[in-house]
Amino acid sequence: MKRIHPIDVILHKRDGLTLTDQEIRAFIRAIVDRTPKKQLVTDSQIAAFLMAVFLRGLSPRELATLTEAMRFSGEVAYTEALNTFTIDKHSTGGVGDKTSLLIAPILAAAGLAHPTPEGVPGIVVPMISGRSLGHTGGTLDKLETIPGFNTQLSFAEMRDVLKQCAASLIGQTPHIVPADRILYALRDHTGTVESAYLITASIMSKKLAEGLNALVLDVKVGSGAFMPTYEKSKLLADLMVETGEASGTRTVALLTSMDEPLGRFSGNWVEVWECVDIMRGTRHPMSRDLIELTNILSGWMLHLAGRACTPEEGAKLSDQILHSGEAYKAWLKIVAAQGGDTTIFADPAAHHIPTATRTLTAPRSGFLTSMDCKQVGWAVQRLGAGRANPGDLVSAHAGIESHAKLGDRIEEGQPLFTLFAEDEALLDEPEKMLRDTLRIRSKPAPRPPLIHEVITANEPKPAIR
Amino acid sequence: MKRIHPIDVILHKRDGLTLTDQEIRAFIRAIVDRTPKKQLVTDSQIAAFLMAVFLRGLSPRELATLTEAMRFSGEVAYTEALNTFTIDKHSTGGVGDKTSLLIAPILAAAGLAHPTPEGVPGIVVPMISGRSLGHTGGTLDKLETIPGFNTQLSFAEMRDVLKQCAASLIGQTPHIVPADRILYALRDHTGTVESAYLITASIMSKKLAEGLNALVLDVKVGSGAFMPTYEKSKLLADLMVETGEASGTRTVALLTSMDEPLGRFSGNWVEVWECVDIMRGTRHPMSRDLIELTNILSGWMLHLAGRACTPEEGAKLSDQILHSGEAYKAWLKIVAAQGGDTTIFADPAAHHIPTATRTLTAPRSGFLTSMDCKQVGWAVQRLGAGRANPGDLVSAHAGIESHAKLGDRIEEGQPLFTLFAEDEALLDEPEKMLRDTLRIRSKPAPRPPLIHEVITANEPKPAIR
Repeated sequence: MKRIHPIDVILHKRDGLTLTDQEIRAFIRAIVDRTPKKQLVTDSQIAAFLMAVFLRGLSPRELATLTEAMRFSGEVAYTEALNTFTIDKHSTGGVGDKTSLLIAPILAAAGLAHPTPEGVPGIVVPMISGRSLGHTGGTLDKLETIPGFNTQLSFAEMRDVLKQCAASLIGQTPHIVPADRILYALRDHTGTVESAYLITASIMSKKLAEGLNALVLDVKVGSGAFMPTYEKSKLLADLMVETGEASGTRTVALLTSMDEPLGRFSGNWVEVWECVDIMRGTRHPMSRDLIELTNILSGWMLHLAGRACTPEEGAKLSDQILHSGEAYKAWLKIVAAQGGDTTIFADPAAHHIPTATRTLTAPRSGFLTSMDCKQVGWAVQRLGAGRANPGDLVSAHAGIESHAKLGDRIEEGQPLFTLFAEDEALLDEPEKMLRDTLRIRSKPAPRPPLIHEVITANEPKPAIR
Repeated sequence: MKRIHPIDVILHKRDGLTLTDQEIRAFIRAIVDRTPKKQLVTDSQIAAFLMAVFLRGLSPRELATLTEAMRFSGEVAYTEALNTFTIDKHSTGGVGDKTSLLIAPILAAAGLAHPTPEGVPGIVVPMISGRSLGHTGGTLDKLETIPGFNTQLSFAEMRDVLKQCAASLIGQTPHIVPADRILYALRDHTGTVESAYLITASIMSKKLAEGLNALVLDVKVGSGAFMPTYEKSKLLADLMVETGEASGTRTVALLTSMDEPLGRFSGNWVEVWECVDIMRGTRHPMSRDLIELTNILSGWMLHLAGRACTPEEGAKLSDQILHSGEAYKAWLKIVAAQGGDTTIFADPAAHHIPTATRTLTAPRSGFLTSMDCKQVGWAVQRLGAGRANPGDLVSAHAGIESHAKLGDRIEEGQPLFTLFAEDEALLDEPEKMLRDTLRIRSKPAPRPPLIHEVITANEPKPAIR
């Protein structure tokens, strides 16, 4: 067969032709196999390809093939060896979004309750998470506030944890989807980040490398979402579902609100604290939205895993698992298996030791009608909880506590946010950012719904009558 | 003012916004000013920009600004110092296209005949030419078959030759339009060569760096043209005329046929020989199309320079200058001024010494109705006269002689082409290429017209009646 040259792949995409599977695989292979001495493909060629994809888009098959080629560009989890139902959840990122810390134990509890004939949990969750960047938080940063907790497991170590605990919470390694690392670094400085096609290939290649039977996607919409409009979030959800299903992974996406921080706390240790409280039976009113979203997402996962006839029944089961303390037991097991010190959970509030605290109060009475949730996320970052650039250090104790939710009736002088930082000087700018973004109006405005839409691969077709 | 970052220029072009003059200038400046240590803009960013321009195009103003920014990215000829009418011709490249070797002397003769009050020729032609590449020939390769002829003059040396001879035939230097060298090298391997916008900026920036009052463009159409369709050649002509006029250079483009080799010979020394023959009064029947095209192009130039009331009168004047021997006198002057040995022109045929010759004869009688002129160009290249890659060596003596033109009545066994090479082994493949591309049919087909269309900046508008 004729050897495929990267330049031909660029030309075909540039001219709007559909790339063949062979062309896409050869291009990704060249990216991964090149060495400084043997430049099978140059950075400039990859950049030209990325811009052509940005402007031309990809057909469903091209996108599925690109995702598969990236998925298999490095190490894959090989969870098939466990011979059980493998499922995960992925969120496009938000503020105070800590559902992973609850969902992994809930599904693990369900998996541990019904082992396979071989003695493996009936459901496993091989969750690979990311770090905070920009206005969004990162699950790994939260987990690493637990002393001893090791997120840097190999896939072999992860499989051992899964066998024992049914869930594992780990980080990306350089061996997982190396093609994405190379592409992402180039996209970042060539203006090709915000392509729904390239985002889909990036996210889905990493998720599918876990070897999943099913995947539930939490695609954020609203002022704190990564995608700028509802339509673009929906396109991203559609593409991810289509791509997941094409690879044989049952995939469902929920478009959910990110118009205000989710739950009570946004930060690192404070988010672990909030989850531990919930799993131990405390239901703080500010955590209500977090618990609801967690149960809906877990409900879909339990449904896809065959533990509930409908997602709604799944959500009820999820809530039971949370309430009964089973999720907390699974959580302690996972943390211990990954080297974490579980004694810290005995009194989580005692371990929240910011050196500087300030409370932002309402300047007038009325209704809290809106905020720019992205600005709130940036305020949390500036307090020290997040990072502006990859590699920056984050504070365990920085963050915010929400005292009111959108739609709430507010009295003048009532606390709206408490800010935490490790240095008094870090409070001023975030306080101003938060103050500027809050809108208190005399008339109430409707709260945005928590779930906007559920996206599955096959939309119902109109019947012929 | 806010500093302009290359990434923003990429994003704006990607998103279909119109780039400001400042943005375009800053981007080109960053390309030229960067050093290995200070990567103001990376190759990947330039590649992404080029692909975005390829797919989005450029507005007339963006194109004019880009061309100007590139033009002034290095040394410019500063022919304004001569205080005379400066004019040039540019061809998009063809097979056997040697009009430059005739047009420069014709215009020089006209310029020398009417000096300015300061004693400078009334017209000067600061012609910067290129080398053979792929299926097209290069003026520099032809000139360098003249012993001693130096094409590597500085702009200062060129101005001295212009003062004395009214024309100068030189090559590109690294100091002229350095931005184009960088962009072109990247375009070549990122699939962004065939953009009419980028081609226009590349050609026009180099031509306008000569400091021209007027420019006549010979844009080839047909099977031997660089652009694949008539429409694309016309788009290129339109863009080049628009861009030339925007910079204050009177610009006209002629769409001319490149369906068969122009004139009698295609190669290097053989083309010089053909021109010397013409300038010394020999009118070989196979040179008829070459002489006609030369006179039409020179006619436009003489018209634009104010020496003829119409292009048609200009063409008549050009033919007189050719006939009278004035062009030949100017030619000898130019060659001598650039160090060339003019004694070689006394018997040019004697200096044509290929070691291998073969004649291709007609396999049947009929009419020569078509050939793939690009294939003919590649055959000339394979004989040794051209180069597949920049930097390859070319043979002075390789080439072909045409014995028939499209539309001619052919008798079986009559010679069609004579092939010249410096090695017998080099004849076989080109002979087959030529044989395969020639079509002899029983019925005649009309010859394509030599000139298809003349493009000026302002198309006539319908009158209001």
